[in-house]
Amino acid sequence: MSPLPKTMRAMVLTGHGGLDKLVYREDWPVPEPAPGWAVIAVGACGMNNTDINTRIGWYAPSVTEGTTAEGGKSGIAVLEEDSGTWGGRGIDLPRIQGADVCGRVVALGDGVCEDLLGKRVLIDAWLRDWTDPLNKDKCRYFGSEVDGGFAEYTAAPVENLHPIESDLSDAELATFATSSVTAENMLARASVGAGDRVLIPGASGGVGTALVQLTRRRGATAIALCGADKAAAVAALGATVLPRSPEDLAAALKSATGSDRVDVVADAVGGPLFPQLLQVLVRGGRYTCAGAIAGPIVSLDLRDFYLKDLTFTGATIVPPGLFAELAGYIAAKAIRPLLAQTFALKDLHKAQEVFLAKRHVGNLVIDMSLG
Amino acid sequence: MSPLPKTMRAMVLTGHGGLDKLVYREDWPVPEPAPGWAVIAVGACGMNNTDINTRIGWYAPSVTEGTTAEGGKSGIAVLEEDSGTWGGRGIDLPRIQGADVCGRVVALGDGVCEDLLGKRVLIDAWLRDWTDPLNKDKCRYFGSEVDGGFAEYTAAPVENLHPIESDLSDAELATFATSSVTAENMLARASVGAGDRVLIPGASGGVGTALVQLTRRRGATAIALCGADKAAAVAALGATVLPRSPEDLAAALKSATGSDRVDVVADAVGGPLFPQLLQVLVRGGRYTCAGAIAGPIVSLDLRDFYLKDLTFTGATIVPPGLFAELAGYIAAKAIRPLLAQTFALKDLHKAQEVFLAKRHVGNLVIDMSLG
Repeated sequence: MSPLPKTMRAMVLTGHGGLDKLVYREDWPVPEPAPGWAVIAVGACGMNNTDINTRIGWYAPSVTEGTTAEGGKSGIAVLEEDSGTWGGRGIDLPRIQGADVCGRVVALGDGVCEDLLGKRVLIDAWLRDWTDPLNKDKCRYFGSEVDGGFAEYTAAPVENLHPIESDLSDAELATFATSSVTAENMLARASVGAGDRVLIPGASGGVGTALVQLTRRRGATAIALCGADKAAAVAALGATVLPRSPEDLAAALKSATGSDRVDVVADAVGGPLFPQLLQVLVRGGRYTCAGAIAGPIVSLDLRDFYLKDLTFTGATIVPPGLFAELAGYIAAKAIRPLLAQTFALKDLHKAQEVFLAKRHVGNLVIDMSLG
Repeated sequence: MSPLPKTMRAMVLTGHGGLDKLVYREDWPVPEPAPGWAVIAVGACGMNNTDINTRIGWYAPSVTEGTTAEGGKSGIAVLEEDSGTWGGRGIDLPRIQGADVCGRVVALGDGVCEDLLGKRVLIDAWLRDWTDPLNKDKCRYFGSEVDGGFAEYTAAPVENLHPIESDLSDAELATFATSSVTAENMLARASVGAGDRVLIPGASGGVGTALVQLTRRRGATAIALCGADKAAAVAALGATVLPRSPEDLAAALKSATGSDRVDVVADAVGGPLFPQLLQVLVRGGRYTCAGAIAGPIVSLDLRDFYLKDLTFTGATIVPPGLFAELAGYIAAKAIRPLLAQTFALKDLHKAQEVFLAKRHVGNLVIDMSLG
């Protein structure tokens, strides 16, 4: 292979705030592979809520609005030092974001097996301390606590590289990682099994569409909430579709499915709908949550929770091994990509505006082949 | 045995509202044993929050205050038809309340083994459909959906009677059932094990003192929140004691225990302290809840919940077998009674006033030997 260039194109987060904090550079240093790490030429990198949450400082306790409030600018007054990231640690700036990379290995650090060179890989975004892999306090997230994939090149530990054989494009493969791993972890945390009725708010997004597909893979029934303009696309994944925010959720459920109860709610939305989500759960039902784009501060009636013996599970850091499982589902086409739109790296501002407008179904991806 | 009298003394709940809804009667019909049931001469019957919650209609969603608001009168405007009970069903009135009975079997229905006659028993308050014992929707609570122990005689299914040999008094044995079963179920739901640090708000009450004892029985550390006037009594159970509502809970924990984090919160209080309870939980921590006497509507920051991978478990209906386990702990003196005060049946109004004033440590009991 030819030697790597010294500089590259990269979208660099320079501070917490509006889109202007994301600065496009053509002279950013190409990463060098540390021992045990590899450098990857990025083919495509998918977009996620966490990119925006970190940019706007949404993870800071002082922010109380949803991610989408005022076009994703809700946290711009937050001090950088208390903003944190998904992985729970502080963020060093400048930072290259972007968690969901499909690319090709182009350079190896010391101690990495030569066989990996040239391989097409997906990157597992949870970086662990492998001397203590279950210590969640030592986990870091790719594109948050370390540089990610919104650049021509990126670097990752060899343990995080999953070679993949697939006839899908890089952009299609870049739709999966964070969304699908998050969704599969939610369903695992809620012990979803065959016959369960699973309610999925915000079902048209990346996590939502993955939840629908992975719920059905488990032999469970997916009941999706999404906007009318997206209902056909979500129904095509095999879900029963209800309106996005029904005024009377129980009545809407009853009318669409014959029952006003569900066994599981798999939620990445939160916000004003939360109390109704608990009310439609059966006694002994499960609520699992991996996000709160409609607002993190919700009103909880503890009686709904304890008198019905509900179980709530937060789902952020995933068990080791889950990414490999997902890579298997992708290779076996047990789940399929929902690539809504691709953008060039330099158009990431525009791409985030489209992302926040939430008119798409599935995932938006930065495709490096577009320039 | 001599035949049972036709009438008895009983405290009868005649409607939802204030203490005046509890009417003392000396001419109430003695229950007759149905097939598979037994009649028990009540020796003593312990008091619980659920007696008051049901009386004031607190289980109705339209009530938002704590149990103790305005002396337990918060729900008096609630319509009877939507008030429900702990067991989740509507209540038929009039009703004899009281869940925690220690007494003696005095009459048997058809099909009940003669050996039971004359036995001293505790009553397991969860009545199940034994053709479908794990169906929680078919569970009823003794003293709620069926008549309980605030009377000279009561009746219960034979499966709910646990013969006990103990040198404790009836009043002492009547301290255990609901409190200890609730507490043990909470600890089981939160998978509390040796080495866990367990935070217990409201630790001076019946459930709280049981939580402290049963936490220590599991080899875990009990950290109790309670009023200064009760600190010595709770500390004597083996807990580290902090103030009842610390302004800065993390700082209070740090100063008293050297760490500002706990693995588990076992809560029957809810209310304004709730957000701080989540903040002091470790990543992967567990919150379990069996009540909300300081207020059921709490503010939940979903980020505290999902980003730390917390697990919440509601703990109301207990698995079959748990009561028998508890009866074993009582017989073996692995837990001890905390009998704060006893009252005659006719003084139940006064007893509930004392209960709501929350100046006691442990349990209040109606002792039938007092008249």
